[in-house]
Parts: sequence; structure tokens; C-alpha cells
Amino acid sequence: MAENTTDSLMVVSAHAGDFVWRAGGAIALSAARGERVTVVCLSYGERGESAKAWREGKQLAEIKELRRTEAAAAADVLGADIRFLDAGDYPLPESPELIDRLVTVYRETAPTVVLTHTLVDPYNGDHPAAARMALQARILAQAVGYDALGEPLGAPPVFSFEPHQSEMSEFRPDVLLDITEVFEIKRQAMRCLDAQEHMWIYYEDLAARRGVQLERNAGPNLGLLRNSRAEAFVRHYPHVTAKLS
Amino acid sequence: MAENTTDSLMVVSAHAGDFVWRAGGAIALSAARGERVTVVCLSYGERGESAKAWREGKQLAEIKELRRTEAAAAADVLGADIRFLDAGDYPLPESPELIDRLVTVYRETAPTVVLTHTLVDPYNGDHPAAARMALQARILAQAVGYDALGEPLGAPPVFSFEPHQSEMSEFRPDVLLDITEVFEIKRQAMRCLDAQEHMWIYYEDLAARRGVQLERNAGPNLGLLRNSRAEAFVRHYPHVTAKLS
Amino acid sequence: MAENTTDSLMVVSAHAGDFVWRAGGAIALSAARGERVTVVCLSYGERGESAKAWREGKQLAEIKELRRTEAAAAADVLGADIRFLDAGDYPLPESPELIDRLVTVYRETAPTVVLTHTLVDPYNGDHPAAARMALQARILAQAVGYDALGEPLGAPPVFSFEPHQSEMSEFRPDVLLDITEVFEIKRQAMRCLDAQEHMWIYYEDLAARRGVQLERNAGPNLGLLRNSRAEAFVRHYPHVTAKLS
Amino acid sequence: MAENTTDSLMVVSAHAGDFVWRAGGAIALSAARGERVTVVCLSYGERGESAKAWREGKQLAEIKELRRTEAAAAADVLGADIRFLDAGDYPLPESPELIDRLVTVYRETAPTVVLTHTLVDPYNGDHPAAARMALQARILAQAVGYDALGEPLGAPPVFSFEPHQSEMSEFRPDVLLDITEVFEIKRQAMRCLDAQEHMWIYYEDLAARRGVQLERNAGPNLGLLRNSRAEAFVRHYPHVTAKLS
Amino acid sequence: MAENTTDSLMVVSAHAGDFVWRAGGAIALSAARGERVTVVCLSYGERGESAKAWREGKQLAEIKELRRTEAAAAADVLGADIRFLDAGDYPLPESPELIDRLVTVYRETAPTVVLTHTLVDPYNGDHPAAARMALQARILAQAVGYDALGEPLGAPPVFSFEPHQSEMSEFRPDVLLDITEVFEIKRQAMRCLDAQEHMWIYYEDLAARRGVQLERNAGPNLGLLRNSRAEAFVRHYPHVTAKLS
Amino acid sequence: MAENTTDSLMVVSAHAGDFVWRAGGAIALSAARGERVTVVCLSYGERGESAKAWREGKQLAEIKELRRTEAAAAADVLGADIRFLDAGDYPLPESPELIDRLVTVYRETAPTVVLTHTLVDPYNGDHPAAARMALQARILAQAVGYDALGEPLGAPPVFSFEPHQSEMSEFRPDVLLDITEVFEIKRQAMRCLDAQEHMWIYYEDLAARRGVQLERNAGPNLGLLRNSRAEAFVRHYPHVTAKLS
Repeated sequence: MAENTTDSLMVVSAHAGDFVWRAGGAIALSAARGERVTVVCLSYGERGESAKAWREGKQLAEIKELRRTEAAAAADVLGADIRFLDAGDYPLPESPELIDRLVTVYRETAPTVVLTHTLVDPYNGDHPAAARMALQARILAQAVGYDALGEPLGAPPVFSFEPHQSEMSEFRPDVLLDITEVFEIKRQAMRCLDAQEHMWIYYEDLAARRGVQLERNAGPNLGLLRNSRAEAFVRHYPHVTAKLS
Repeated sequence: MAENTTDSLMVVSAHAGDFVWRAGGAIALSAARGERVTVVCLSYGERGESAKAWREGKQLAEIKELRRTEAAAAADVLGADIRFLDAGDYPLPESPELIDRLVTVYRETAPTVVLTHTLVDPYNGDHPAAARMALQARILAQAVGYDALGEPLGAPPVFSFEPHQSEMSEFRPDVLLDITEVFEIKRQAMRCLDAQEHMWIYYEDLAARRGVQLERNAGPNLGLLRNSRAEAFVRHYPHVTAKLS
Repeated sequence: MAENTTDSLMVVSAHAGDFVWRAGGAIALSAARGERVTVVCLSYGERGESAKAWREGKQLAEIKELRRTEAAAAADVLGADIRFLDAGDYPLPESPELIDRLVTVYRETAPTVVLTHTLVDPYNGDHPAAARMALQARILAQAVGYDALGEPLGAPPVFSFEPHQSEMSEFRPDVLLDITEVFEIKRQAMRCLDAQEHMWIYYEDLAARRGVQLERNAGPNLGLLRNSRAEAFVRHYPHVTAKLS
Repeated sequence: MAENTTDSLMVVSAHAGDFVWRAGGAIALSAARGERVTVVCLSYGERGESAKAWREGKQLAEIKELRRTEAAAAADVLGADIRFLDAGDYPLPESPELIDRLVTVYRETAPTVVLTHTLVDPYNGDHPAAARMALQARILAQAVGYDALGEPLGAPPVFSFEPHQSEMSEFRPDVLLDITEVFEIKRQAMRCLDAQEHMWIYYEDLAARRGVQLERNAGPNLGLLRNSRAEAFVRHYPHVTAKLS
Repeated sequence: MAENTTDSLMVVSAHAGDFVWRAGGAIALSAARGERVTVVCLSYGERGESAKAWREGKQLAEIKELRRTEAAAAADVLGADIRFLDAGDYPLPESPELIDRLVTVYRETAPTVVLTHTLVDPYNGDHPAAARMALQARILAQAVGYDALGEPLGAPPVFSFEPHQSEMSEFRPDVLLDITEVFEIKRQAMRCLDAQEHMWIYYEDLAARRGVQLERNAGPNLGLLRNSRAEAFVRHYPHVTAKLS
Repeated sequence: MAENTTDSLMVVSAHAGDFVWRAGGAIALSAARGERVTVVCLSYGERGESAKAWREGKQLAEIKELRRTEAAAAADVLGADIRFLDAGDYPLPESPELIDRLVTVYRETAPTVVLTHTLVDPYNGDHPAAARMALQARILAQAVGYDALGEPLGAPPVFSFEPHQSEMSEFRPDVLLDITEVFEIKRQAMRCLDAQEHMWIYYEDLAARRGVQLERNAGPNLGLLRNSRAEAFVRHYPHVTAKLS
């Protein structure tokens, strides 16, 4: 497929695995269209999402390396560049410095779509922290007066990807993205994350359930679709469009 | 422009003027693409939105005829078919019969997009009543077991168009529709509604304000757009799509 | 006190006792300023709020007469006119006819302030029904084209008075009304309602609690106020004013 | 198991199948404890939820009989009495008469727990209609002055069971009910509903997903639980208890 | 009463008095059942809730000692251990170090129930700050990778106790806890807090009002209960249970 | 006009221009009544709201001086004292020190009304930051134990002025302030802000639109008002009053 030279997807992920479970389909679709895709992992999830490794007696440095390797492999399968900011997790500390590093990525990659966590997640404080920083950095990056390299950013649309316990996180899907054609790629990427095997099934089931809902909301196409797989997103800003659909 | 033979827009309007002020741009865009557009006026707005005529001493039948003529002219300018169900206003009575008449229109026109009022409007009880009936009829029209002519409906997306006092009606725009290219047509259609002259300016200003917001949310196009005109909408069901934007 | 010839208070009460418990202070204040005050009781509360009388073996007609007498006495103490529409309770039926009767009262009394129930009350379906009808009639009464005697109504502010279980009814006070100076009158009016003795203490305590909150929100007067009594209200439309306070 | 002579569960279901998919586990648990369980089906779901039968060319009477037979079999498997009010569906008409019939059941069965639909469901208007009637009838049944046989009802807790598209129906689980021990019974009951085969898998998956969440919220028991199955509910009134847990 | 060796209650209180007014009944009930109860006071409330002492000309150290003595006495009456972290108030500073100290208490006491403030309180910024830290520490304490002594925590249920101005703090009671049998103990504990005499009456009245609501929501027990006293709570996570009630 | 010696208005503005666009009318009205008016600019808006100057190649110090001069001129036109805290913008850093400086201003000026930004603004993170600090400082300033010069503050009412994109900032007007008589002064003050010319028209249009809404909500005065200009506000605490209106 020819490269798409203008569209650019940026994904801000609190931990090394989040982008795979929650946005792997969106990433694969974007990459398949030849777009630039950049995943920013703020931490490796070394403390909060690596229980298995800790129980096996592994040490911090080892666990970080492990998670990094897995995440890099998953990003490779999906077709994305990946950057690790190694800011620490549990808690993921919010700081002007970390936000500034995100501004730099915004200015460099000039995303036309941004994906990140929800602003509410009562099961994981790092997720909202990541979302707050991603949103704040996006605003700063738009200001010509903000002191960072690169051109001021346009105002790209932002979407929250789906948290682990949707209803408790005030996640009411605004968008159902059809990922049927790239679902095998997402499945393969999830398989790169050995540390969280129990998640594989969970997110395969979720994709099927969101697929059923996609079919039920697909309007005139209802009845034509079969075995759809979908990811759900919540939109942060109004959708600018020339055609209602 | 070649006719678009599959897309079909249906607009459910409580009174004779609502579709012009609130969705005239969307209608004109749809018609300009060659789509079928059907406006259903549940009433003429003869009691609640014809103060000028009543103050001039006109009688009920005369006022209904007046509003009908104006609305038909506006629909003609916009490129839409229009039907008047003459169910009465202030209050617009909700009934199974009126809902059934809407089911019939749904089955006949097979809309791929539906526009109607908001479910909340503390300044006008007819608007939410119209929206409730439009939504209920849409569900009934989907059931193969519902006894009406025509094929069961797919599940078309539904949008609420903008009420007169947005914030008081819990109207938070989900979609900003670029109507710049058809704005002159909308302006001309508004001019057909003599009874409500004070609304012309109000809705021209609103289109400009929504246009400013469209530009501010337009992402990479920011700075390219000038003097945009827009209409705002709230989406009722998740957006089904193959590409985030 | 000289009569105030322009201000007019209208209170729409589902049952015979509601206006006393929930708005007795506001009514007494208004009457004390010489304003016209009109209480409309949609029903006597004969089925839903007369448990004591039913348990004593009284019959329907007798209970209605009892509640009417009590409510009339309370209104007299407060300084209000009272009208009984006798529409029945448990359930209070919503109908165009009953709404039309309310329109007639609106047009006749030209209220400058309207009080009624909350739109949410999970413990009593009649209360929201009364509120819906009061609000709908207010809109209809404003339309010159609505066929009823009298001049079209201006758009008077509407307040919900406090329900029995505030938090469960989404009642977040917007206004704390200082009723200290008329509190003895309210107490006396409550004493007219023999059938609901347990309510006397409850609403005296509530007035003291709302009084504490009034003092805590009274700004520069904080510390000057003592033993305040207050009633809480929720405002339905924006406050139009020439001075913030 | 010895019969529990005081506890009584009442389930108000819009259509013949709802109580199985959404509350089959709760019903089976209750029956297993020897409680009285009464399911009230307001309609057979003959128009709105019997697409397969209509497509096979069956007629209305035949379809109603079919759905009745299936639902009765499912109730039998779960251990519940079932009543069919045959009020019609799509739309399910709300009326004082139907509410009165529900009052009669409340008075007769004296439920200590009530289950019904959510008050919001943008995909099915009958569900909220059923919930509104169930809630209204519960309030009426408590009034000694309401004219129906039997003793006035206490105020039993009410729960909404889970709708088909939870997030779109503002369904945020308040309660996760452990149905692991009766899950096979629920599975068997679901199998009685031939007309809706695609639902079997969907609700088995949902039970597993809710089970994962139950384990994640189970506090000190975390880690002890395996392969849990759960149903989610939303509570309408505060939980009255002598012990926080 | 025999000691309950598994249940453990942890209460996180911003100031020295909060746990008494807002959760004294829950604490006394828990202690009466032989459970371990640990109160953590993040500050003494030396600046923000000791107006009387400041007006009497006392100095900071003296006031802290005074509040400490009072709070310790109240905890003793209720049957709870108490710890003072002395982090300062007005404002109560949020920091990783303070959160870490809370993690240590979580790991040590292994609570099965956690009580803290609401996340919203427009009258007191320390209360939401305490709640945010209590919730964040609870999440961290669950992670095996978090570096602190003791076993990773299960996921205990969390409840917000009632703020001073409930409706303004978005406090809608989920749970009404029957504290009738321990109410005299709570009253005695409140009497230990000399600095805030005006609160005694306020919270006795509140307990009675919540008691009335408890009776009204108590279902089949309605009518059996008399003079109940209750405390209200809001639940943060779904209730995991094997029986609806 | 005679000086009003007790009323005092305090306006907390994130950037140098905000107080003009969003509260210029309220300030002018207050000053016209002879009240003390104090505007606190937390920053000059030197990075985030000075795009034009940056594009012209100006440097930081120059831009700050420019904005300061403009804002001082606007304050002078409106009749307000102005203070520049120069805390920096994009991002405006939240700190105990900055909050403490606000406490000092509260204690010194003893405001009877406070105006600031909304707590939500997805387009500008500095605005909610300013609002959080203004609210926190107001609470601290009320505590006799807080160590700052001056008398403890009463609890003045707080209002949020209107953000640039109201609906996206959860801004539902509670108050419509009639600024018709001072509108020319506001217009003149806006003209002092050369750097943001595009805002002049935008806020003139907004004042007219809010004026139309003011007339529509003005009750018995409806029809008397013409060409009103208004500013909208959201109230943070209940309105304490002796008369409903």
C-alpha cells in the first residue's frame, strides 16, 4: 500500500501493554493505510502491571527490560514506532518535564489523530494521569509562544480508548471502529505480551462484543456484516465533518 | 450533479420553521449531493410560533395556510420534499397514531440519516415530544413484526439539531458540520419565513459562531479555513466507522 | 403592610399538604410583602398521603373533605388564596384538560414567581407529574395563539421546592431563602395539618438545618446571623438580574 | 432445601425472554434458597423480539403461543412462577389499567426484592416503559388508600437488570451478583428460548466478563475465586444494612 | 464479644474530628463486632477546624495537642486505634510521601472495608485531597511490585462518609447504615470534641433524619422500626454479593 | 456616583485579557455603583494568548510588557484596580505560594463577590487551574487559623464567567446579568486589547445573544426590553436571599 504522507497517529500509553489491548486495531488500521504511527509509552508498567514477573522473583531492571522487549515486538507487529519515556509507574508521576517531552513528540510527529486513556479510571490512577498529560501537552503544543522545537500543532482530534472496566470509568462509546480486517494482526500483537496471558481472551471477547454492537448500529448495512470485530472510543472534541453519517 | 440513489435524509420537525433554522444547511448539503431529502412537519407551529400573525388578528386556518406556504417554499429552496402531518401544536400531542404515521415514512423513505429535535428543551415542550416520537418510530420501523408497509428499517444514525437555547437544553455539540458552501441557500430559505424575521439574524450569527468553533477544532486544517459557517449536532448512537477522524 | 400590586406568587402543589411543608415560608414572606399568592392543589392527597385517616376507617369523600379543610386553614394562616382542582391522586393523572385548567390560572393570576415540585422524586410519582404539568402549562400560557382567556403570560421564573428525600431526588439547592421572620407563621400553618403530625418535627428540623447552611453561605454577613430558618429551592431558568449577589 | 417462607422475588419483564437473559441467575439463586419467585411478562415480545418467526412466515397468534411456551419452560427450569399479561409490544402501551394489574401482583406476592429493566434504553422503548410501570405500581401498592386487594406493600428494594447495550443505557453496575453455583441452570434456561439462539453465546460471555469483574472487586477473597459467573444490577434506592461490606 | 479475627476497618480522616461526626456509628458497630478498627488522621485540623481555639489566643502547638487529645479520647470511646500523621491542614498537602505512608497502613492492617471523605466538597479542599490520597494508596497497595512491607492488598470496598453539606458535595446516599444500637456510644464520642460543640446537635439531628429515611427504605420491616439512627455512605465500587437485598 | 463603601468585587483572571472579554460588563457595573473592584491577573498570557506578537517576532519580555500595558488600560476604562502576579502561563503553574498570594488579596480586599474561570475548559488548561486556585484560596482565607494578615474572610459568593466554548466547558448559565447600560464601556475596554482583534466581534455578538436570552427569561418585563446586552455566569454556591425572583 502506498504511503500516506499526511496522516499521523499518536498514541499515549501509560504502561507498556495498554496500547495493544485498547488500541491495537486502530493502530494496525492506520499503519495498513500507510500512515505514520507513533506510540509513546510513559512507563513500562513495571510495578503495576507485571505481577507475574514479580511473583517469579524477577528484579526491577529485569522486569523493565522484559516489558520493553514485549512492547517493542507488539509495536512491530502492528506497524508502529514506539518510544519509551521510562517515567515510572504506580504511581506515574505528573510533572512539567514529562509534559514537555510529550510536547516535543507532538511537534515532531504532527499527529492528525491522538489516542490516549480515559480521564476516569477508579481501578488505575496512572491511566487518568497519562490522559491528563497527553491533553495538556496537546494544548501547549498548539501555542506558538510555547518554547519547543517545531511548528505549532493544529488541533488534532483526541479519542479515549477503552479502559478495562468501561462502565465504572464513565466510558460511553462515541465511536465503534471496524477492525475486522486487521483483527488477526491485533491478535498476534497481543500474543507478544507474555506477562498478561489472561488478557488475551478478555480482549478477544471484547472485540467480538463491540463487533456485535457495531453491526447493530451500522444502519443500512445491518444484515450485511458478519463476525465483525470492533474497538470502542470516546471522542473529546466535536467531530468536524462535511457529511453526517 | 448526479443523483445519489442510496443515501436518504429524513428530518422530523415539530413546527413548520424548525427544519430551516436548525438543519437548513445539512438539508442543502444532502440535496446538493443528490440524496433524497424528506422533511416531516408534525404541525404548522400555528399556535406556538406564529405570534406575529395572531397579533395581526389572523384566524387559525389562515395561519396554518400561511405557515404551510412559507415552509413549502423554504423546503423547495433547500431541495427537500416536505410533508405536513398537521397534528396540532402547543401542545403537540403524542399518540400511537402519529408515531405510526412516522413509521410509515421511515419504511417508505429508508433514511440513512435522521435529524430531529433534542430530548430536552425547557422553553418548548413540543420539541422533545417530536424527538421522542421520531426515536420511538425509528425503533418500531426496524421490527419485522411491526405491521406497516415496506421493508424493516436498518438502524440509521440519529442527530439532534441545535435548539434555540443550547446550554439550557443540555446540547453539547458532538458534530460541527461545515455548511459554508451552501450557506447562501440556507440564508435564502430562512428568508422564506416572513413570520419570524427576528430569527434570520440570530441564526446567521449562530452559523458564524459555530463556524469559528469548526475552525478551532479542525486540526491540521486550522489556519486554512476562513469565514466558515457551521451547524452543530448531537449524535444519539455511536458512530460506526472504518477510520478515526 | 401596603399591598404590592404587581408581584404575584403561584404555587402548584400535587397534594393538599405539600405547599405547607415545602414552601410555607416562601408563601408567608410573599404575603407579608402584600403580594398576591395563589396555591393550586391538584388533588387532596386523599389516597397517597392520608394513611392515618384510612387506617381509622374513614371513607374517600370524608377524607377529601378533611384534607380540604386542613389545607384551607393552612393557606389562610399563610395568607394565600387556595384552589382545589380535585384531579385525584395516586396516581395524579396527567391530561391536556388539567394542564388547560392550569393555563387558565396562569393567565388569570399573572404570576411573577412560580413554585412547584421537583421533576425527579423516586418516592412519589405524583410530584414529578405535577411539576411536568406546571411547566408545560406555563409554556402554553405564554403563547398568544393558545386559546384561553387573558393576556399571554410573561416568562416567570420557576423554582422547585424541596422534596422529602432531597439527595435521592437530585435536589441540589440553588437558593436558600431566609424565612426566619415568618417561621412562626409557617409553624402555625403546619399545625393545621393534623393528619401528618410526624411531619411537623421533620420540617422544623429541616428549616434549622437549611438555616445553618444559609449562614454558612451568607458571605460578609457570616457571624451576624443567628438561629436562621431557611427553605431551599432549585431554579429552573437563569436568574435575570442587574447585580450579582 | 427447606422453603424460605418470607422472602419473595418479583421480576417485571417487558417481553417473554428478558427475564432469562438478564436475571436468570438471580432467579435461580432465589429459587434455590426456597424463596417464592414470580415473573410477570408484560408481553410475549411477539412483534419486537421474534424476528426469526416472522421471517419464517408465522402468524401473530402462533408466535405468541411459541414465545409463551418457551418462556414458561425457561421459568420452570429456573424455579419461578410466571404470569403473562399479554399487553402487546412494540410498543408496549403504558396505561393505568396495566399498572393496576401490577399493583395487584405486588399486593399478592409481597416481594422483598423487585427486578426490572433500566429507565434508559435507546435501543428499545418497551424496556423503559416496563420499568416506569413497575416503579409506579410499587409506589401505589404501598398506599393504604389505593383501592386494591391485600395489605399495603412495604418498600422493597428495586434493581435494574442489565440491558443489551449497557454503556448506552447509562448502566453503571452497583451490584455484582455471584451466580457461579447456578450458572448451569441459567444456561439450560437460555436454551429453552429457541427463537433467539444468537443470544446464548452473548449472555454466556457476559456472565464470564461480569465474573472477572466480580473477582476484581471481591476484596480479601481476591485470588480465591476462579471462573466466576456474575450478573450486574443497578440499585434504585439506598441499601439499608447493619453492616458495611 | 468474641474477637473477629479477619474483618478490619480502616478510616482515613483529613482532620482530627471528621471520623467522629461522619463515621462514628460505623466505627462503633465494627468495634462492637470485635473487628480491628484503625483511624488515620492525616492532620489535626489545627488551622481549618479549630476556630474557637484560635479566637481564644492559643498557639499552634497547643492547638495540635488539644485536638490530638480530644480525637484520641473519641477513638477510645468508639473502640478504635488511632494514628496521627500530622501532615498539616488548610491546605492538606498531597504528596507521594504521604500516600506512601498510607500504603504502609493498608499493607499492615489489611482492611476489608475502607471509609474516607467524598471526592467533592466545595466547602473544604482538604476533604477531597484526603479522599484522593486514600484511593490512590489503596490502588498502589494492591500491586505486588509496589515497594512496601507486607502482602499486596486485596481490593477492599470503599465508602465515602457524609460531608457537612451533602447536596453541594454530590452526595447521594447508596447505603443507610443502622447505627441505632451504638448511637449512645457515638453521642459520647462526639462529646469528647469540645472545640466543636455546635456540631453535636447538628449530627444528632442528622442521625435522626437518616434514621427516618432508613425506615422508609427498609422494605418489609417498614413499620417495625422506631426511632432509628443511621449514617449514610456512598459506595465507590460495585457491591459483590451472593444475595440481593 | 457616591462611593459604595462595603461592596467589593474581586476577579481572578488567568491571563491579561480574560477579565475583559468575560466579565468586563460585570466589572463596569460594579465600578459604576461605586464599589471597589480588584482584578488579579495570574499571568500576562504571554505564551498562550499572544500568537500575533510571537508571529511578529517579538520577544518574551516585550510581549509581557505589551500585554500588561493593554490590560492596565482596559482595567482603567472599566474602573478597576489591577494586579499582575506574573506567575507564567502555558502552563500556569499551581503552587501553594501562588495560592497564598491570592489569600492575601482576599484578606486585603474582603470581596463580597468573586468572579473567576470555569473548572472545566478542554481548550485551555490555565483557566481551570486559575479557578481551582481562586476557590482554594477563598476557603483558606476564611480560616482564622490560616497565617496571613487581615481578618478572616466571610464566604463571598463565587461565579464562573463564560468560557470561549461554553457548551464544551459544561457552562450552563445560572445568571444573566444585564450589562446594557455599561456595554459601551465594555466595548471600549475590549478595544484596548490590540493583540486579539478577532475577539472584539466575537464578544460583541455573544453579548447580543445573551441579551436575547435575558429578554426571553425576564418574565413580566418581557416585551419591554430591547437590544439588551448581557453576560452569563454560573454560580458556585447557593444564592442566599430574602426574596425569590
